[in-house]
Amino acid sequence: MKINENYLKLKESYLFSTVAKKVEAYKAANPATEVLRLGIGDVTKPLTPSVIAAMHKATDEMAAAETFRGYGPEQGYDFLRDTLKAYYSKRGVALDFSEIFISDGAKSDFGNFLDILSNENRALIPDPVYPAYLDVNIMLGRQIDYAEGNKANGFKPAPNLAYDADIIYICSPNNPTGAVYDKKELKAWVDYANKKKALILFDAAYEAFISEPGLPHSIYEIDGARTCAIEISSLSKTAGFTGTRCGYTVVPHELKFGGTELNALWVRRQSTKFNGVPYVVQRAAEAVFTEKSQAETGAVIAYYMENARTISAALTEKKIWHTGGKNSPYIWLECPGGMKSWEFFDFLLERAHVVGTPGAGFGKMGEGYFRLTGFGSKQTTEKAVGNILKLL
Amino acid sequence: MKINENYLKLKESYLFSTVAKKVEAYKAANPATEVLRLGIGDVTKPLTPSVIAAMHKATDEMAAAETFRGYGPEQGYDFLRDTLKAYYSKRGVALDFSEIFISDGAKSDFGNFLDILSNENRALIPDPVYPAYLDVNIMLGRQIDYAEGNKANGFKPAPNLAYDADIIYICSPNNPTGAVYDKKELKAWVDYANKKKALILFDAAYEAFISEPGLPHSIYEIDGARTCAIEISSLSKTAGFTGTRCGYTVVPHELKFGGTELNALWVRRQSTKFNGVPYVVQRAAEAVFTEKSQAETGAVIAYYMENARTISAALTEKKIWHTGGKNSPYIWLECPGGMKSWEFFDFLLERAHVVGTPGAGFGKMGEGYFRLTGFGSKQTTEKAVGNILKLL
Repeated sequence: MKINENYLKLKESYLFSTVAKKVEAYKAANPATEVLRLGIGDVTKPLTPSVIAAMHKATDEMAAAETFRGYGPEQGYDFLRDTLKAYYSKRGVALDFSEIFISDGAKSDFGNFLDILSNENRALIPDPVYPAYLDVNIMLGRQIDYAEGNKANGFKPAPNLAYDADIIYICSPNNPTGAVYDKKELKAWVDYANKKKALILFDAAYEAFISEPGLPHSIYEIDGARTCAIEISSLSKTAGFTGTRCGYTVVPHELKFGGTELNALWVRRQSTKFNGVPYVVQRAAEAVFTEKSQAETGAVIAYYMENARTISAALTEKKIWHTGGKNSPYIWLECPGGMKSWEFFDFLLERAHVVGTPGAGFGKMGEGYFRLTGFGSKQTTEKAVGNILKLL
Repeated sequence: MKINENYLKLKESYLFSTVAKKVEAYKAANPATEVLRLGIGDVTKPLTPSVIAAMHKATDEMAAAETFRGYGPEQGYDFLRDTLKAYYSKRGVALDFSEIFISDGAKSDFGNFLDILSNENRALIPDPVYPAYLDVNIMLGRQIDYAEGNKANGFKPAPNLAYDADIIYICSPNNPTGAVYDKKELKAWVDYANKKKALILFDAAYEAFISEPGLPHSIYEIDGARTCAIEISSLSKTAGFTGTRCGYTVVPHELKFGGTELNALWVRRQSTKFNGVPYVVQRAAEAVFTEKSQAETGAVIAYYMENARTISAALTEKKIWHTGGKNSPYIWLECPGGMKSWEFFDFLLERAHVVGTPGAGFGKMGEGYFRLTGFGSKQTTEKAVGNILKLL
């Protein structure tokens, strides 16, 4: 028996473990100091009342033979696919019911979708980037190119005909940079993909954090996207589902390569290697989209975004170049004084007792940058920002 | 962009859709006749009171910031891994905590585990078989050999040194045949795998249905299994989790190929392509293993097994050769009078109003055989058996 040797090419990521170790060491040496965490990538607010009520109700259904649910459809229950169709329709995106697949989260589908694509394809991945995009391609032995983000392009790399890409990753609003493509910028990627007969994997996990009108929440707001893009999204950040696990993936029927519909292949993959999302979780997800619930989750998002704005305002006051914080819970800043990412991490921890995430951990283009997030509490965020303002 | 061409080699399975169509046609033609379904592969009894209580409690925890759970460990929460360690320990199997991985079901892990194994490996798959084993290997372009089950070997194929296998699938108690390997028979497979340096993927999804003492519930009851086998199991049938989605996979640290621990590769795979099972579902799963809950789920299993015994007794009375029904909810019978599988399906439907599953749908060795199950209601099962006794 031979292992998949590609796994041996993976680099261990020590980003979050090194952050944790440094914080522990600092706390041990300074037990009286309150450490203020602005590096959190997880949500901190509980599920909303509407979602909780739906989960209780669904749990009760599982307790009686008449309402019990066994195996569900691998692609998700009709009630949830219908709900998502209506959600898309509100912003003018018409999807067919059969184009929407319920998943246990964006991370799973970003990995699993590659199953139906040849390993000969070349992947184009932004740098800096959410690390899982890269690793799932290394695991398959794929050739990888990078679309480099930098200060000049505002960490929104544009397509370049020199790229020989087959599979293109785009995340907007971006993790870790918080940068958001506008419609014109996204249209350039859609045109490029259609021209190259490439496939875009569009990560819309942070779409609910967009506050400015006119910015695209979905790639299907762009003409031509239905022939070149799938969209993967999640309720993790939208509705606090990081521990509840539900997302959705859109695969338009127009997506055909070599005469084969990707939608049909994805149905086959999911039917064979997945058994669907728990019934109670699908009912919880359905409840996210009621009018009452949208107000509840909207209030939670507004809370996180207020934190992000507080951080962004302080950086603006100190003339520190940054992206995000406006249509994204992430703030991506240039380390002041030419500091490197880990240098600034130590400086901020020691001098302001604030923990963030070194940008270098997200790719080589992240060196010299740093990520803060709005997912902490209001109180912690304000204290941290106060310390940062004093320090810088 | 190129698709994974291996998908084009998959055969469409029309087994269950053809069954459904034939039943619909029969009902349309005979509206007054009650059709008795003994082909059900899903559970029909609701979740037990202990499990329901645990899900409600966990849901309430998700409603308050102090007890809310965000991202959990991809490998599962400690509380559930500890519970399973204790469950294995009760039958003398000592596992390390880090060898137990919580999954969203056996089907996912049977597909996903192949990610970490080279596509050059040859797979050895029993025939007849649960169709997903075969399809996930076709999707990867693997060479496949078959270990043929038949009346002579009681649908328990033995290892054969002529096989050139790297990856070996064993399901015991078996779906669809209900046959169960004893310790000596399983030891032969373990010895074969160790000798060939092959890997066994052991499917223990029906272990809770074993009633006879001495039969192995886990492959780790066999000496030498820790160097050649992983075990994949599920709460789907054990505790009615087909719509709630929770299973577990055991990967011993001794499993090394080319000097690399499979356990480490699986950790890496799951951390990159999976975000764990919902917190509420893991709490529900934990509740399955309390003493009170084991009595509750035991009663449900006893109910299904009483149905299986009723069917088996009738077949014995009619001298129809069959396996299963004793340590498995499945009964696998030789079609009487030399009928082919689909011929017997039509005969049974038209003459006894009973629906089962044609064995030919599970592989070529299934031709001439037929599957019935104990998952229906007591009343339906008794009526169906009465009709069968009258007919045959």
